[in-house]
Amino acid sequence: MNLLDSITSPADLKHLDVNELEELAGQIRQLLIEKVSATGGHLGPNLGVVELTIALHYVFDSPREPIIFDTSHQSYVHKILTGRAGMFDTLRKKGGLSGYTSRAESPHDFTESSHASVALSYADGLSKAKELAGRGEDRVVAVVGDGALTGGMCWEALNNIAAGERNVVIVVNDNGRSYSPTIGGFAKNLTRLRDQLAQIRMQRKYDEMMESGKRTLQSMGWVGERAFEALSALKEGVKTQVVPSEMFPELGMKYIGPVEGHDVKALLHALNYASTHAGPIIVHVATEKGHGFAPAVNHVADQMHSTGAIDPVTGEALSASAPGWTSVFSEELLAAARKRDDIVAITAAMAGPTGLTPFAEEFPARFFDVGIAEQHAVTSAAGLALGGLHPVVAIYSTFLNRGFDQLLMDVGLIKQPVTLVLDRSGVTGSDGASHNGVWDLAIASVVPGIRIAAPRDPARLREEFREAIAHETGPTVVRFPKGDVGADIEAIERTPSGVDVLFRPAGEPGPGDLDVLLVAVGSFAENAILAAENLAADGVRVTVVDPRWVIPIDPTLIEMAERADMVVVYEDGVVRGGVGSALGEALNAVEVDTPLRQLAFPDIFPEHASRSEILRDYGLDAESVEAQVREWTLAYRQ
Amino acid sequence: MNLLDSITSPADLKHLDVNELEELAGQIRQLLIEKVSATGGHLGPNLGVVELTIALHYVFDSPREPIIFDTSHQSYVHKILTGRAGMFDTLRKKGGLSGYTSRAESPHDFTESSHASVALSYADGLSKAKELAGRGEDRVVAVVGDGALTGGMCWEALNNIAAGERNVVIVVNDNGRSYSPTIGGFAKNLTRLRDQLAQIRMQRKYDEMMESGKRTLQSMGWVGERAFEALSALKEGVKTQVVPSEMFPELGMKYIGPVEGHDVKALLHALNYASTHAGPIIVHVATEKGHGFAPAVNHVADQMHSTGAIDPVTGEALSASAPGWTSVFSEELLAAARKRDDIVAITAAMAGPTGLTPFAEEFPARFFDVGIAEQHAVTSAAGLALGGLHPVVAIYSTFLNRGFDQLLMDVGLIKQPVTLVLDRSGVTGSDGASHNGVWDLAIASVVPGIRIAAPRDPARLREEFREAIAHETGPTVVRFPKGDVGADIEAIERTPSGVDVLFRPAGEPGPGDLDVLLVAVGSFAENAILAAENLAADGVRVTVVDPRWVIPIDPTLIEMAERADMVVVYEDGVVRGGVGSALGEALNAVEVDTPLRQLAFPDIFPEHASRSEILRDYGLDAESVEAQVREWTLAYRQ
Repeated sequence: MNLLDSITSPADLKHLDVNELEELAGQIRQLLIEKVSATGGHLGPNLGVVELTIALHYVFDSPREPIIFDTSHQSYVHKILTGRAGMFDTLRKKGGLSGYTSRAESPHDFTESSHASVALSYADGLSKAKELAGRGEDRVVAVVGDGALTGGMCWEALNNIAAGERNVVIVVNDNGRSYSPTIGGFAKNLTRLRDQLAQIRMQRKYDEMMESGKRTLQSMGWVGERAFEALSALKEGVKTQVVPSEMFPELGMKYIGPVEGHDVKALLHALNYASTHAGPIIVHVATEKGHGFAPAVNHVADQMHSTGAIDPVTGEALSASAPGWTSVFSEELLAAARKRDDIVAITAAMAGPTGLTPFAEEFPARFFDVGIAEQHAVTSAAGLALGGLHPVVAIYSTFLNRGFDQLLMDVGLIKQPVTLVLDRSGVTGSDGASHNGVWDLAIASVVPGIRIAAPRDPARLREEFREAIAHETGPTVVRFPKGDVGADIEAIERTPSGVDVLFRPAGEPGPGDLDVLLVAVGSFAENAILAAENLAADGVRVTVVDPRWVIPIDPTLIEMAERADMVVVYEDGVVRGGVGSALGEALNAVEVDTPLRQLAFPDIFPEHASRSEILRDYGLDAESVEAQVREWTLAYRQ
Repeated sequence: MNLLDSITSPADLKHLDVNELEELAGQIRQLLIEKVSATGGHLGPNLGVVELTIALHYVFDSPREPIIFDTSHQSYVHKILTGRAGMFDTLRKKGGLSGYTSRAESPHDFTESSHASVALSYADGLSKAKELAGRGEDRVVAVVGDGALTGGMCWEALNNIAAGERNVVIVVNDNGRSYSPTIGGFAKNLTRLRDQLAQIRMQRKYDEMMESGKRTLQSMGWVGERAFEALSALKEGVKTQVVPSEMFPELGMKYIGPVEGHDVKALLHALNYASTHAGPIIVHVATEKGHGFAPAVNHVADQMHSTGAIDPVTGEALSASAPGWTSVFSEELLAAARKRDDIVAITAAMAGPTGLTPFAEEFPARFFDVGIAEQHAVTSAAGLALGGLHPVVAIYSTFLNRGFDQLLMDVGLIKQPVTLVLDRSGVTGSDGASHNGVWDLAIASVVPGIRIAAPRDPARLREEFREAIAHETGPTVVRFPKGDVGADIEAIERTPSGVDVLFRPAGEPGPGDLDVLLVAVGSFAENAILAAENLAADGVRVTVVDPRWVIPIDPTLIEMAERADMVVVYEDGVVRGGVGSALGEALNAVEVDTPLRQLAFPDIFPEHASRSEILRDYGLDAESVEAQVREWTLAYRQ
């Protein structure tokens, strides 16, 4: 029987017995492997939480009792159990199922961000609201990974949750990984606890053998009923034992675990205990990322943390991804590090995706994985710089948000030579709203003295990265998008200050012709040239330039803007506070009033869809740019 | 003898014996009381670390062994011991001694930010650099308050420090306070440890009595030499005992303490131990804020955390500070809370300075002090909002930086009704670079859907705060500056959308006259009107408007700008990404090319000086604005 079809909401779970719940787990796992293999997505993490999520929804009464998933890419099973099993063909596609919890999708979803370490804070707030509303008996559940616990927000939240008497259930989903293995003193302690679990697992196997043997004996009349009961109780006790823990003693918080995360019965036992415990409690659950799918379990790099489309049997990728921006950076970093001993590299738990693995292998002593801890990544980089080194912090653009204060106050204020390499800048696509790197230019550019480069192609990435690490009097940023890197685009001319002219209309302007200066930021250069070529054919004269270093505004760019009839800035970020605005400020300051137009994202959170779909939707593909510039110039001429 | 005069660098300390060090402590304490009484400054915290700082510089070899002070307002004694005792008359004054560590002042100063919880991250980076340079034997010392430990960055750093074997000495300066008493489960544990110290202190008194008695006996030949030695050793052991701690066991870090923070000998003993310990170590030092100055110790609100000028004997303030912006907000919050049960308030350890104390007293169940934990403050507010409440987060503008990602991703993305009240926005003055709130408009305005108000006067603060808490479909910000609030400035007219016209030049424009629209943000309205009045007398026609809600840009403002010959935006923040830029973006979007000028701060960190001095220096006082607008209009007319 297909149990899965009978589950339209968590209420349907509650009619099942433990054996059926286990059967359901198997069916969910199959669904995940089948569907996520086809669409791509966070396969490994979700395979790890099948039993845990079933048990959570069995024990707690969502949405009255909210279940908040931290870094909610681990919410696929939750989606399946809350009526969305049929939507997995559309996962992460435009108009389809979000890869994270989504309030529009379900009343069982409370949050949307994909940034780690926030669930405990949400839970703290929700539990305070429950208490004020006289509904303090409702449990508020937060499911947080061991990796996310390396983030400082969790500490802030734990400190507050522990201080109260509210019924917050903190489920630590401990798979030993942040993305890559979780680092730090804290992880060592978790590992020690997990080792206890390994012993318990062995003990259980032993007990089972013993029990089986005893049962045989019993059937032969050799062992009394009471002895059997005692044995069962012992076994049960071992499985979900409540150990006095040393994990959070300074917080004075109740802890139970570790619990075997793929044993439904053990999970139910522990969560039932937690659901009746008065006050905050931590339930430490040991899970295996990729559980039940050998290609994921055995996947060395990240246990299929997030995959593209794969073969559902072998786990092999269906299309080899072309070397992208990340690889170019990775190579150039390595080349630089071979020449300069003072280059060190920092990641916040994402060495692989940010291209640091080759560096880490060749220069292990100069490589620092600080955990999911962007604040510390940035300020410890400042410390390294104070010690005479040149740190390179490789980080996803969207996660720079977490280190903004540190970049401003701990690096910028004391002008330390720290280079931030922002991967996945601009629109990223299928990961959805909170993975987009469209805010980096706006926030990084407020740091006094910072220099920001947006390379347009592989050659410029190499060159601008080299320039960044040669800059020793303050922070630098090199930002590039997700995905494939295009071919090199050679400049027609480079000005002495380093502005590249990429396209210039032929011939002399006719009477009434406007000269448009199109400033292309980063990888948008290619689209800009395409648009300018087409416009030139229609007599609209557009010169395309790439300033290379987009912040601060290059004086040559100001001169060019002064000579132009109109300036258009085209960038893979938001209008608000972007490079276009910065150019506007620079022009205002020197009283140059050339009309300025901005092609960038409005004040929205882009929904999940492919990068190209989103660019088209917001008028930022080559065709739209061409049409828009034509329209602007026509309007201005009138 | 004045020992203080003999200390020009830490090297001079090393010739002194313990008695002399204690005498020196007394002299330093006197100097602090005398000087800081006159200038104002962080008196309480520095009185608490006199002995500790002496002992640190005695044991460690600064600057080879860096001593990083967290929230470096506790660095006055360090400044005295590193050759700056003679500069205290200029403390926090323009061109004078900074209130924080300052790299320009001394090679013994490594950092400059006044934001808490960063020292451990700097120390981690510095120790990694030491190790790579083969100087791993050098100790790197971080002095961090118990309050700062509630900040998540400390957890991130501890996790990294504990994972290594580097020689980082973490001195926890535990005075039981963040500003107000430190909160949370963590603080409870520290308190428990401090209670141990109280017992030790009593034990010591008992031992001293016993010893004194025994010595008498000994002098009478009744007690042997060996017995006395044993007794001394016991006493020594008690004073600086190395207790196996439960404080950071999950990090596996060595801990010693608690150490009596006003006992030089005990401190030397503990720090000497730490200086030879291989690997990271925590030294827990119990200090008393304001120690040795009764008016500070007995000061209930904050033990004179930071004072204005005071009487050096009684501690009485020399000038009563006028009710400022904070008081107006404080009253209005209380009024709102009396009407609406759903209003709750959050502070990050600063209830008093942000005006929340009256609310906390009247509505204790609806008041949440989350510790120095701005990230958690913002996201737990989102949780409260998800639970149906309207949270008001009262916070200094500069500390919003710490919650930027949370505001964007945890509040903005899911459109929760959280109101942030930003005190000390704009230039703050004497606290120096990192206390300035000049970046809030730039960073908060990138949050899609956010609404930001900048009240110009008390009546508008009340009104805009009421509007903010009535807005239920996303985050709102109300920001106001430090200090005295002026008189109410009534509008000539309010447009239907809510833009206030504050000044309009009389009569009709003459031929060639320009119509200037001066957009005044917040409290700059008063200066703007002054400037416009003077300009009107000279025939320069300036209309002054206050948009009240500065983000998003009001459509009426765009229409006004379209009709004007020039728009000037005048704001207490940075040009980069400020309201002027946002207006520029809005004008670009509708193809309105009225020349735009911006009066705001350039890309700098303002140095410490009075607020009015800084405004004058950057051309943002009324006279400068008048002159600048005159110049711009003349230039444009030509």
